This record gives sequence, structure tokens and C-alpha cells, in this order.
Amino acid sequence: MKVLWLFAHPERRSLGGALRDEGLRALDDLGHDHRQSDLYAMGWNPVVSGADFGHDPAERLVVGEASRRAWESGRLSADVRAEQDKLAWADTLVVQFPLWWYGMPAILKGWFDRVFVKGFAYGVTDPARPGRSLRYGEGRLAGKRAMVVVTAGARESSLGPRGINGDIGELLFPLQHGTLWYTGMSVVAPLVVPGADRAGDADFAEYAARLRNRLRTLETEAPVAFRHQNRGDYDDDLVLRPHLAPGRRGLGVHRAE
Amino acid sequence: MKVLWLFAHPERRSLGGALRDEGLRALDDLGHDHRQSDLYAMGWNPVVSGADFGHDPAERLVVGEASRRAWESGRLSADVRAEQDKLAWADTLVVQFPLWWYGMPAILKGWFDRVFVKGFAYGVTDPARPGRSLRYGEGRLAGKRAMVVVTAGARESSLGPRGINGDIGELLFPLQHGTLWYTGMSVVAPLVVPGADRAGDADFAEYAARLRNRLRTLETEAPVAFRHQNRGDYDDDLVLRPHLAPGRRGLGVHRAE
Repeated sequence: MKVLWLFAHPERRSLGGALRDEGLRALDDLGHDHRQSDLYAMGWNPVVSGADFGHDPAERLVVGEASRRAWESGRLSADVRAEQDKLAWADTLVVQFPLWWYGMPAILKGWFDRVFVKGFAYGVTDPARPGRSLRYGEGRLAGKRAMVVVTAGARESSLGPRGINGDIGELLFPLQHGTLWYTGMSVVAPLVVPGADRAGDADFAEYAARLRNRLRTLETEAPVAFRHQNRGDYDDDLVLRPHLAPGRRGLGVHRAE
Repeated sequence: MKVLWLFAHPERRSLGGALRDEGLRALDDLGHDHRQSDLYAMGWNPVVSGADFGHDPAERLVVGEASRRAWESGRLSADVRAEQDKLAWADTLVVQFPLWWYGMPAILKGWFDRVFVKGFAYGVTDPARPGRSLRYGEGRLAGKRAMVVVTAGARESSLGPRGINGDIGELLFPLQHGTLWYTGMSVVAPLVVPGADRAGDADFAEYAARLRNRLRTLETEAPVAFRHQNRGDYDDDLVLRPHLAPGRRGLGVHRAE
């Protein structure tokens, strides 16, 4: 594999930092290539602005169109292009972060906001069928795999299917389905590390071993069965057809059982 | 009302910007006080770092504990304290943003990451019952109301209960339930503006009128019925008791019907 490891933690001497180190060592041991974007270490700027696109501040900024023009003409800012080049190189993306307010730290959210510009990651249509959007299982990033590694302070039960904090798979839906799958990537099950604030050496050893095991099978394990946009599951209003997950609603219906 | 309007859009000459202007005018007309945090205009820094807490970089940073110590001793950075003071002043919070990758723009996510520190917004226990966490319906921000106003490029049907992009109420769960309700705030239904990329003057007029109507009733309308942590709905593992939403799973179970 060629793995891009995206890491967003302000402290490398943390459980998350130790797991990142362990993961990169495991990839070395398995003979895989890897590159890293350690966003805090890089001083990554997460804020989308017209400056990303060489936009004239006197003109009204429409982010999607400005980003597409900048991407097509090679005028995107250099830090964004460098990240796109890393992702283009990779066949596998690992996204590792501590769960803050049930989502990604801002520095990581802004990696997707700035790097996944129109034309590069979305707004792509099928050249053979111009009206057909290539997304949710198709798109420019199709063929790549992605895995989320998330550390959380909450205990495991509270992130379960009926846990008070919300099912972790559904909390991750905007990232796993709305971003990674949207752009065509195959998403495997996340590695969730609960109780991270109280983890001791034995907990670290357990999760380090789980991470090694996951990396060993990452290339071949079956991805999450999110539904494809263009295989007949959705109607012309992009609503799931009634015979699928009949009578159900909510984020879970977009995953085939 | 005393309203803090939190706004995160890089372009004030946008549909979002026009709705923000309209909303503030409506509050004036209704005789309500308001303050604003226009995050792009302020040049808000969304990245949590040890500098927020006066943390010695030679020491390992544990964000929760460092933030609590800095909050308790008044050593939080001045920009964070200014936002906490605005929120303390307000009885109502409006959170307005364009939906980017099915979540908040990074600049806004990082407002919560930096402002909602331990001690101020979470990690609060009942002084009368030390083991009892005050969260999900209780906490230091209890008594305040919150409303999300979100503009989205997607069409309305695709954000519905079985729409391909995911039910907007569940996409907003990390913010509405995991952040606002977590800290004790009452959350009213969001105002969702779909098709924002293609909106014309008639669409703007329609949504401006809806926003005015919502602001007119914001003080009195019934909030979303998220479940309380401390009223017996959850067991000791913080799992919803089986007689509630029986047989169901997923984010929807945390809302009483």
C-alpha cells in the first residue's frame, strides 16, 4: 500500500501520538510505503478563504466556482496543492484524530474544507453522460481506501448503538459517508479507542495490537456497505427507494445490511 | 432576548450574509438586544493549542485539564475569554453557517473547540451530588436557547429522512445534541435553507420571511425533545433503557417522540 496518514493532535506525547507512531512502525514492518500529514506539526491553516484561489477581494466570492477555477488553472495555494499531491500518490488514507465535540478538531475539518475543492473531489460528472454526477461510490478518488482511527474520552457503551453520546458510526457519518464515500473512496470500519483519557499501559498495548491487526488486513477487508448513488437505490429526488430499508429513516438506511 | 449571533461565512455578499443581515434587522425590529461574532470578519483562530492555556511546551499537554486550570485561574487567552463573556451575556445563541462536507466550516468548529473549555462548558458536576455529571440538559449553559441556521447547496429532498446526503437533523446531531444540548442549552428546530447555490430573489424572500417568523417565536417555541441524562432514561452505562424507543438504534433514539 501507499498510505497517507493524516494526524491531528496538538500533543505527540499523547495516546493518539503513541498510536500514530505505532501505526507507522507497523506499516514499515509490513513493507508498505507511507507519507504523513501531521497537521499540528505542519502548522496547517484550516480556514478556507479567497486567498486559496487567488481571488480578487473586490469580487463576490462563490467558494465552489472559485475553487474549481483555481484548481483547473493550477492557481490553488501551494499548501493545498501539496496535500492534493500526497493524496493523489496514496492508495490508502488513514484519518486519525481525537473526538472533540463529537467531530473532528477544526484543524482537520479544515484539511477537507481546503483540500477537497470542486473539480478535485466533487462536482465531477461522467464525461460519457454529462448529467450524471459521480459521487457516493464514484468520483475522482474512487479506487482508494480510507480508515478512521479515533480516540475518545467517552466510555465504549456510551458510543454504542443506544449510548447517550450517539452511535459512533453515525457520529462519523459526515466524514465517512459525506466526505470519504462521497468522493468515491471505499471506507472500512473505524478503529475506535474509547476511554482515552483514562487509558493505562495495558490499554495502550491492547489498542496498539488492534491497530496493527487492522493495518495488516486493511488492503483486503470488506468495506462498509454504503449505498451507491448511481446503481438504482435512489430515485430522481435522491431519496432511497421504498423497498430498501422499508419503513426506516435516519442515517442507518444508507448502509446496506 | 439577548442574542449572540455566531456567523461563519467567508463572503458577506452571499445568501448566508444577506440572511444574517436580515436576521439582525428582525431582532432590532422585535426590540431584542444582539451581539455578533462574525468569525471570518474577526479573523478568528480556530486551532486549539497550548498557547490558549499558557501551557509550558516542555510539559505534556492534556487539553481538558490544561483548559480547566487556565479557565479557573483566568489565564485563558483573551480572544477565548471575550467569546465566553459574550455567551455568558446572551440568553440565546444563533449559529449560522454554510454546510461544508456535511458539517461546520473549520473556523466555526474551532469556535466550539476553543471556547467550550472544561469547567466552562463541560466537566461540571453537581455540587450537591459530586459524582453526578451535569450534561445533556443540565450544565453551566442551561437556561439558554440555541437555533441553528444552515444554508446548503443540496436540494431539500436529499437532506430528508431518507435522502442520500443524510437526514439534516441527524447530520447536525454532533452540534445540536453533542455540543449545545450537552452543555445544557435548549435547542429549537434548525432553519435549513437548501439549494442555496441556486437561490434567486424569490427564494431569498421566502427564506428571509421564514427566518423572521422563526425569530419572532424563538423565545417561546417548544425545543427539540432531546432526552436528559439525569432523569432516568439511561442506565449506569449511559445506554438508553430498553423500554424507550424499543428495538430501535441510531441517533434518532435520543429524541423523545
